[in-house]
Amino acid sequence: MATIKTEIRSGVYYDSAKLMQLQRSLASLPGIQDAGVIMGTESNKELLAHINLVTPEVENAKPDDLVIVVRGEDEKSASAALSKVDELLTARKSGHDQEYQPHSIEAAAEMLPESSWVLVSVAGRYAAGVAREALRLGKHVFLFSDNVPVEEEINLKQKARELGLLVMGPDCGTAMIGGIGLGFANKVRNGPIGVVAAAGTGLQQVTARIHQLGSGITHGIGTGGRDLSEKVGAMTFLQALDVLTRDPDTKVIVLTSKPPSPRVAEEVLKTARKAGKPVVVNFIARALTTLQEDNLYFATGLDDAARLAVDLANNPPKMDDNQNLRLDRFAPGQKYFRGLFSGGTLAYEAQHILANYVPKVWANAPINKEYKMANSMVSQEHSIVDLGEDEFTVGRLHPMMDNELRIRRLFEEAADPEVAVIMLDVVIGYGSHPNPASELAPAVAKAIETAKKAGRHLEVIAVVTGTDEDPQDFNGQIELLKNAGAWVDPSNEVVVRYAGRLLRALADRESSTEEPGGKPVDLTTLKKPLAAINVGLESFAENLIAQAAPTIHVDWKPPAGGNERLMNILERMKKQA
Amino acid sequence: MATIKTEIRSGVYYDSAKLMQLQRSLASLPGIQDAGVIMGTESNKELLAHINLVTPEVENAKPDDLVIVVRGEDEKSASAALSKVDELLTARKSGHDQEYQPHSIEAAAEMLPESSWVLVSVAGRYAAGVAREALRLGKHVFLFSDNVPVEEEINLKQKARELGLLVMGPDCGTAMIGGIGLGFANKVRNGPIGVVAAAGTGLQQVTARIHQLGSGITHGIGTGGRDLSEKVGAMTFLQALDVLTRDPDTKVIVLTSKPPSPRVAEEVLKTARKAGKPVVVNFIARALTTLQEDNLYFATGLDDAARLAVDLANNPPKMDDNQNLRLDRFAPGQKYFRGLFSGGTLAYEAQHILANYVPKVWANAPINKEYKMANSMVSQEHSIVDLGEDEFTVGRLHPMMDNELRIRRLFEEAADPEVAVIMLDVVIGYGSHPNPASELAPAVAKAIETAKKAGRHLEVIAVVTGTDEDPQDFNGQIELLKNAGAWVDPSNEVVVRYAGRLLRALADRESSTEEPGGKPVDLTTLKKPLAAINVGLESFAENLIAQAAPTIHVDWKPPAGGNERLMNILERMKKQA
Repeated sequence: MATIKTEIRSGVYYDSAKLMQLQRSLASLPGIQDAGVIMGTESNKELLAHINLVTPEVENAKPDDLVIVVRGEDEKSASAALSKVDELLTARKSGHDQEYQPHSIEAAAEMLPESSWVLVSVAGRYAAGVAREALRLGKHVFLFSDNVPVEEEINLKQKARELGLLVMGPDCGTAMIGGIGLGFANKVRNGPIGVVAAAGTGLQQVTARIHQLGSGITHGIGTGGRDLSEKVGAMTFLQALDVLTRDPDTKVIVLTSKPPSPRVAEEVLKTARKAGKPVVVNFIARALTTLQEDNLYFATGLDDAARLAVDLANNPPKMDDNQNLRLDRFAPGQKYFRGLFSGGTLAYEAQHILANYVPKVWANAPINKEYKMANSMVSQEHSIVDLGEDEFTVGRLHPMMDNELRIRRLFEEAADPEVAVIMLDVVIGYGSHPNPASELAPAVAKAIETAKKAGRHLEVIAVVTGTDEDPQDFNGQIELLKNAGAWVDPSNEVVVRYAGRLLRALADRESSTEEPGGKPVDLTTLKKPLAAINVGLESFAENLIAQAAPTIHVDWKPPAGGNERLMNILERMKKQA
Repeated sequence: MATIKTEIRSGVYYDSAKLMQLQRSLASLPGIQDAGVIMGTESNKELLAHINLVTPEVENAKPDDLVIVVRGEDEKSASAALSKVDELLTARKSGHDQEYQPHSIEAAAEMLPESSWVLVSVAGRYAAGVAREALRLGKHVFLFSDNVPVEEEINLKQKARELGLLVMGPDCGTAMIGGIGLGFANKVRNGPIGVVAAAGTGLQQVTARIHQLGSGITHGIGTGGRDLSEKVGAMTFLQALDVLTRDPDTKVIVLTSKPPSPRVAEEVLKTARKAGKPVVVNFIARALTTLQEDNLYFATGLDDAARLAVDLANNPPKMDDNQNLRLDRFAPGQKYFRGLFSGGTLAYEAQHILANYVPKVWANAPINKEYKMANSMVSQEHSIVDLGEDEFTVGRLHPMMDNELRIRRLFEEAADPEVAVIMLDVVIGYGSHPNPASELAPAVAKAIETAKKAGRHLEVIAVVTGTDEDPQDFNGQIELLKNAGAWVDPSNEVVVRYAGRLLRALADRESSTEEPGGKPVDLTTLKKPLAAINVGLESFAENLIAQAAPTIHVDWKPPAGGNERLMNILERMKKQA
């Protein structure tokens, strides 16, 4: 009769590779049907229950108990299997070639002083301590371990930033530094593309596709999947973006992330806009509003990101230096946008696009109900008014037919010293006013003149919607508006994006540039041949050696035998030392 | 001293063009500084207050009072101006050439029996009644009027659908039928592109850009900006999409809308997928997850929609007929997807893409917290499990290194009779299992075989992430999996989209096809030369005549002198007749 037998061991530590080996060895013993070797967490116990390997002892096990359970054909086989556990645990994997293994990072660092990197893949509850030790020794950390609390992550990353070091992780699956893969990494050609990823398999998929498309990478810097969360605030991501921005070999940067905090994503993009090189962005589940915006290229997925990056590396675009915006024309304090629309759809599209450039656009017909103007008659900050909305058209002609209301409003907006840009849409065609520019152009000229007398520059911009066969003379309308001083284009998007660039530049001019603080990461540590110290999964050391990177594996055991209270005391003593 | 004088008239009706003319005429009289002629709504009164044209009489005016107010240099000028109001109101515009104007749509329809269209631009409170009259006479309605309650819109559109007629509007600015523009419309070349728009200036901007790019349109059907709201449910939009689908001259369809209800937008896309021709979609502020999905092409804006449509018209793509999905292989009841991932980012991307194809994807690490699996060990409906999540890796090797847990789960999923598709990711490279396919491929073959014995077809699909330089032999891994019966691709997106198409087709197979109901719109009414009846703004009739479309303008006055109670009685009497 099949029998399940259990053994619980407390206060012991083996890495997960060792546990996997033990489980497989047990399962292959004669008379054994199934075996489980787990740490006694709730989900692990559920898993055992799920495959009918549960006993009362298993149910009572605590999270840091080692649980060994076997199902034998009979009592005898089960007992025999359990009696072999010690023997199996001490059996050394063959093929091992590092003769002496130090017991601490400090000792390993003395053996390999050129090492700049420490890989950490010990169990989560010990990982932060090991990473802190690595930072103390001035090494970058590749932190593969998961189950590390977010508070520890923040603490480590703050420390690293002060020291100009990277903490890639926790739960960082992948990195590739100067052609050498850390953790899980594909063999990818060297090339002109640098990748920053809060996304382990994201980094692998993008770099593998880049290789498949014939190109290659400089560095692939993982940050751990939580780096773009609200709490962590992209600390490592921004360091990595900065170092790739400074790296002359990196011609194109790819940014990818698991679903990020929207606010943090925008912070990252703000920095990316200043990179001075093309940046491809693939933040999963972030809504796309455009495929390109200055040096930013937005991808629809991992494959698309790889394709875009390779295209940009092969055909480098000309980088524009703020589009000749001539900010000096504007007086201090001029910063707001006022859109006076006759077309509702054009007004909606303008809101949608401008939202990429400024934090908040008020409207009388807002996309986002939160941004409804308090009073449609009075603009506030950045405002877009659709004068064709129902509220304006009771017993009144539509503003495409009658310019009066809009002209009155134009003069009001022009008198506001905080207004920098006023946008109009001029929609011609059948049904519309027979010659709208004949009324709007003189008003535009007057508005600009009034502002000028008050020492300001008013940028009036206009989209003209129409065709060369329309009754009003399309080109003639455009000419009239241009001659009055307006900036005109037949594309709503082009006009709104021009406004967006102006507004962003004006806002940047007003805000003091806040530096992220900390010390920049030394680019030369990424450039020199990679040498590393490995703590945790021994296979990671083997992989580095297979890539010809000098590596020392540390024969690590939890300090104080894994006793957390003692560990804390030890760590505090070290800090004071 | 400047003096403001007011006159209030109750129970009178003039169209808004007349009111605008009166205001301009008054403002241009000698000694008059400013004039306002409005209906006494709250927003109109605010506007007058805003330009300092307010008096106690204005403040007391009711919404259907006509308010006439002038500011003269002195009392005398103000009084003189007001005394001219009647004379100015009765003055006829010159250049008018329709000799006899009927007083009802019915009379106009007798004069122009070939008319299929009625344009309605009377004040909002009368508009629904006029539109109903047009429907009773079997005419399509172009309903320019705004300020029409949404309940009236729904009622009109339901009636129209039963009759196989279109109600374009309310608040529909634009339509173009067979080359003739209704309302506001640009002169656009005839061509192969049909447009449906819940977006007045959207329709104008897209068609104008199409013309600028050298192409042209068949029909542009406006629906009113509320058509894709939750309440209206795209009634007109779906009729219009249907008629353009049936129109052999329309080779490419463009759909555009002001920000739609997400649910209604998905309904529309569901229908658009069956059009059998390319459909370009630009729904403002709808998040893009891809640029193309079968016959759907997603645009980032109005300009992009025009560009895409012209490209597609010039280079027609081959339309795929359900991708050889061979649905007959699957047993009845097979319909669910189970993704067993080792890569978190790949799992997130899969969720993000699948959300386009199925209503709900459960996950242990969901993008949308609402879709968190109740228990990560047990899949439900469509599920994506990231086996590399923290909950699975305490004291256990990552699933890229150890396939055991995943293989157990694969067999469980395969035994579920509702499962149709199981997806795996196989991520190779340094750090990963030295030969994952050697373990996964036999398991895949076994899972397929087990399902087969139970009379089912199990589609196992896999993305393999890696490069040809990886230690595991990239192509060898792919071959092993393919030989075991798996469908394999190196692109996560390609694999997930293949699953999505399968799942959608399986769901369609199970659901009875629900017809929207009503009578289809007769395509020939769009094809024959346009003839129309116009009620409201006379300039719309003039524009039709300028385009050589036979048009009768109705000299319309509100029934019962605008008395609403009497109007309602009259309408009920007509219904009964």
